[in-house]
Amino acid sequence: MIKVAVLGYGTVGSGVVQVLQDNSSIISKRVGEDIEVKYILDLRDFPGDKNEDKVVHDIKVILEDPEVSIVCETMGGVRPAFQFSKDALEAGKSVCTSNKELVENYGPELLAVAKENKVNYLFEASVGGGIPILRAINTSLAQEKIERIMGILNGTTNFILTKMAKEGANYADVLKQAQEMGYAERNPEADVEGHDAGRKIAILSSLITGKTVKFADIHTEGITNIDSRDFAYAKKLDKSIKLIAESVNADDGVTAIVAPFMIGEDHPLNGVNGVFNAVYVTGNMLGDAMFYGQGAGKLATASAVVADVIDLARNAGKQLPCAWTDEKCEVNDFTKMVRKFLLRVESTSRGEVLNTFGPIEEINLFDEEFAFVTAPMTEADFNKKQKMIKNAIKAIRLAD
Amino acid sequence: MIKVAVLGYGTVGSGVVQVLQDNSSIISKRVGEDIEVKYILDLRDFPGDKNEDKVVHDIKVILEDPEVSIVCETMGGVRPAFQFSKDALEAGKSVCTSNKELVENYGPELLAVAKENKVNYLFEASVGGGIPILRAINTSLAQEKIERIMGILNGTTNFILTKMAKEGANYADVLKQAQEMGYAERNPEADVEGHDAGRKIAILSSLITGKTVKFADIHTEGITNIDSRDFAYAKKLDKSIKLIAESVNADDGVTAIVAPFMIGEDHPLNGVNGVFNAVYVTGNMLGDAMFYGQGAGKLATASAVVADVIDLARNAGKQLPCAWTDEKCEVNDFTKMVRKFLLRVESTSRGEVLNTFGPIEEINLFDEEFAFVTAPMTEADFNKKQKMIKNAIKAIRLAD
Repeated sequence: MIKVAVLGYGTVGSGVVQVLQDNSSIISKRVGEDIEVKYILDLRDFPGDKNEDKVVHDIKVILEDPEVSIVCETMGGVRPAFQFSKDALEAGKSVCTSNKELVENYGPELLAVAKENKVNYLFEASVGGGIPILRAINTSLAQEKIERIMGILNGTTNFILTKMAKEGANYADVLKQAQEMGYAERNPEADVEGHDAGRKIAILSSLITGKTVKFADIHTEGITNIDSRDFAYAKKLDKSIKLIAESVNADDGVTAIVAPFMIGEDHPLNGVNGVFNAVYVTGNMLGDAMFYGQGAGKLATASAVVADVIDLARNAGKQLPCAWTDEKCEVNDFTKMVRKFLLRVESTSRGEVLNTFGPIEEINLFDEEFAFVTAPMTEADFNKKQKMIKNAIKAIRLAD
Repeated sequence: MIKVAVLGYGTVGSGVVQVLQDNSSIISKRVGEDIEVKYILDLRDFPGDKNEDKVVHDIKVILEDPEVSIVCETMGGVRPAFQFSKDALEAGKSVCTSNKELVENYGPELLAVAKENKVNYLFEASVGGGIPILRAINTSLAQEKIERIMGILNGTTNFILTKMAKEGANYADVLKQAQEMGYAERNPEADVEGHDAGRKIAILSSLITGKTVKFADIHTEGITNIDSRDFAYAKKLDKSIKLIAESVNADDGVTAIVAPFMIGEDHPLNGVNGVFNAVYVTGNMLGDAMFYGQGAGKLATASAVVADVIDLARNAGKQLPCAWTDEKCEVNDFTKMVRKFLLRVESTSRGEVLNTFGPIEEINLFDEEFAFVTAPMTEADFNKKQKMIKNAIKAIRLAD
């Protein structure tokens, strides 16, 4: 019998308990042993909950119980999750987590503590919710040099962008709906400004390089500036608009960005809609592959945590592979990335556009403005040129 | 130093050697040890090949060399691949393979031999080429009851159907092109009749049930009957036509089918084009997830074989999880599956259609025929009704 403690009985934590209990017979069969939730740590009590007798308020109960070999940290935030995780690892318990903020900030440190104590620290659920991408990178893709990752890594923004595209609605209205439906938080900044996606692409970049890529070093733009006219242009070009997190892995470091992109209908990421997420990976041998699923949601995220629990249960005493070290990875200047841009300008600027960009193909959908797609150029070049157009409205990057 | 033997120096086998050699520094770093190809078994010699000195003609050289701990079987076919694999396992060597015919026919037997000899038998590359779906089922999805799998599992047929859709070309012409481009074999039967996809869905069904599902028990239809008018109707309905392998996993057994389906534009499988494949999985906790990549091709398939090599190298002496046993899985009558159908009928049959199906919405694209989509009904019901229409032309199933 393997005994597990769950830290935090919120959305994900209660989902973890549910998956472990509802699928217990399948899990026992596949692990060859029963897995039981012994403790649930929470500040609150849960009178009437069928697991109320498992609730404890003091982490020490868990740390000092030698029967507990696996701890699921589903509290979120850095404090006290970091200390609890570290203490658990030092007490010889393996830890798995859904906490991307903690993993992005302290991943290599907690991995090192785990290694010292001959236990494991896993975090499948911290990126892509139910999408099993991290274990794939560590195992099924271990033979690959992963040259590039493009991901739709945030469900809230993808929900908003999908709804804006389908209904021609504007950003503020759709955000409000998303908040009412529980798909967006009251303070939506972490999602809509791209920070959540940025943390996730930082973790993915760290795993594929084996070094540490910090979110703070990644250029991040959100979706708050996207309007219905952008979607009109996208539709005209048979493209969709997605918040893309991109990381290009070269010998001299990674180049990464989070920003809204127009993406063509032939690209598999084009059709990833609503709260679904996807990670599109290019390996030097494998070519392109994509992993698609629910990027958030109680049971999908909990399922990924339980996958880690099973991995830990099956591999007690064994070091599971994870290439991530605390060596700093060079993050290169994103303005050297080359791509096409869609630029919207006021009709009065035709002459400047011609002088600056040369002959272009105008897209005319509205009276007082037009747009065009540039030739491929660096971000830096484009920025310089855009500044020469006095009445430029805005630009959106093209992904392909 | 881990020493590997590769059986068969054809397309996949030479790809395996290439991946192991070209990515050797990445692989060594991730495994913590070097992996070297010591032998290549083939009937032929390869004068001038940089690995010509590794080529041997007698399997005994490999079986009797205690230095070889991992054997990659990339020969294809059942004879002598089965005997060589079994002998290698009995000699205490782990085996990995890309050979779906062998796995479908002898998977549980070879898994049992591996277990007896405390080694492993892995076969990631046998389904979906470079798509890491089998390891995901055995690890990342081990906590799930997988209720349904829908896959585009054959690159040749998907290439043909994609080209027919895009170019309005007919089947025979596109098949000929595919053969000239090397995407279809001279004798294309195994692909175009759905047998290849059938073997793969049999393997997937076995893995998700933990029992054995035989290809012979799965109803299989190919694409040879699909014509340009079918695509015209599909386009009218905003759907694509794909050769889908479907397996529904219930408590009383699986119900499975391989056949062309019309699939709506909102479904992620809709956009899987050309030689790409995808496996769409529904778990009872996770919900829907999809794995997408190159279903065939030298390096993609070889990459999957090498992923198995790495797994074997990292887990020497340890039994890797695989739920598949030789217990027979009940395969239920596919005619009890409920879905909609598109039925094409000659214009002369309007009256019979009305009498049999009731009021329908006609799709009129051609002078002498029309089509309509039925209400959801069992295959058996539909077949009975279709027989009552004297001038019915043909039917295609709808996937959603």
